[in-house]
Amino acid sequence: MADEKELAALTDAEVAEACKEPEDDTKDFFFQQTMYRIKDPKVSLQFYTQVLGMRLLKKFDFESMKFSLYFMGHEPASDIPTDEAERANWVFTRRATIELTHNWGTENDPEFKGYHNGNSDPRGFGHIGIVVPDVNKACERFEKLGVKFIKKPDEGKMKNLAFIQDPDGYWIEILSSNLGSAISNF
Amino acid sequence: MADEKELAALTDAEVAEACKEPEDDTKDFFFQQTMYRIKDPKVSLQFYTQVLGMRLLKKFDFESMKFSLYFMGHEPASDIPTDEAERANWVFTRRATIELTHNWGTENDPEFKGYHNGNSDPRGFGHIGIVVPDVNKACERFEKLGVKFIKKPDEGKMKNLAFIQDPDGYWIEILSSNLGSAISNF
Repeated sequence: MADEKELAALTDAEVAEACKEPEDDTKDFFFQQTMYRIKDPKVSLQFYTQVLGMRLLKKFDFESMKFSLYFMGHEPASDIPTDEAERANWVFTRRATIELTHNWGTENDPEFKGYHNGNSDPRGFGHIGIVVPDVNKACERFEKLGVKFIKKPDEGKMKNLAFIQDPDGYWIEILSSNLGSAISNF
Repeated sequence: MADEKELAALTDAEVAEACKEPEDDTKDFFFQQTMYRIKDPKVSLQFYTQVLGMRLLKKFDFESMKFSLYFMGHEPASDIPTDEAERANWVFTRRATIELTHNWGTENDPEFKGYHNGNSDPRGFGHIGIVVPDVNKACERFEKLGVKFIKKPDEGKMKNLAFIQDPDGYWIEILSSNLGSAISNF
């Protein structure tokens, strides 16, 4: 363990030192996707569309490598191009997409052990987070739909915040856009 | 292993069956954050701001639980509120943010083994993806900055696409917004 004295947040001066203003070369960069692997696309598509309200933005199949990619996001139906070639390029202009990777066959493979969600050893990835207008109302709906909870809004120290799991066990934080004032004084 | 006959992508009919139109109850949901853990915030802040062109949108310290959250994103400097209380709520109205979690002390702990990036066993999370205007140019710059590559744009079967690593070893795909037409015919 580190010495107790070293257990501290960065100071404002340390943050300012580490964060320089971005260079012009990075001007049009944007964070487009978060990828994780899923066992069964039928189950995941149903979850991401019906439970989380996303739409399938585009599916890509890679026949020779036997996998498919499903891009999901909260885009209006009317924005999704009907022409598949157009749609294939459009999806990479969208921010905040989830890229679900399906390696063919896992859904029928009795020896497939499932994917690792990153919240037990070895840890790394934590979760994705979805902002909803009303956390309690959203969670009541999730309960009716049989969604698994890691933490309900009224449990634990931090209220008005929940964690649910997707069909592969990945954690999804359900939060309100006014969470900031609550955690600033936590 | 699954039978060879079972190794296939979903058909269009199976996709249509799994993807119902989202319910009204999910109308204002949006995908706000992707969280993973980092060892050393000084190193990560420098990487996400200088290499990837993000800005620190907001930092939250949790004194009693000895961790900090750093929200990063490609937001214009002029949009970031100067008032900290306002900034704390503003950040949760932003899509496509990265939430870096720092458990205090890992940066100085000789016994800390590092975080798991999800691309070796046990697999799960894969990567985040950043769209850039010119993949080759961006990667030349990354090379000059000493960034670690998993795949350079001219390596492998899929050209004009790279994978780099952040300071904790997480994979970051570097792609162009016209990737769609390339992979549709792959």
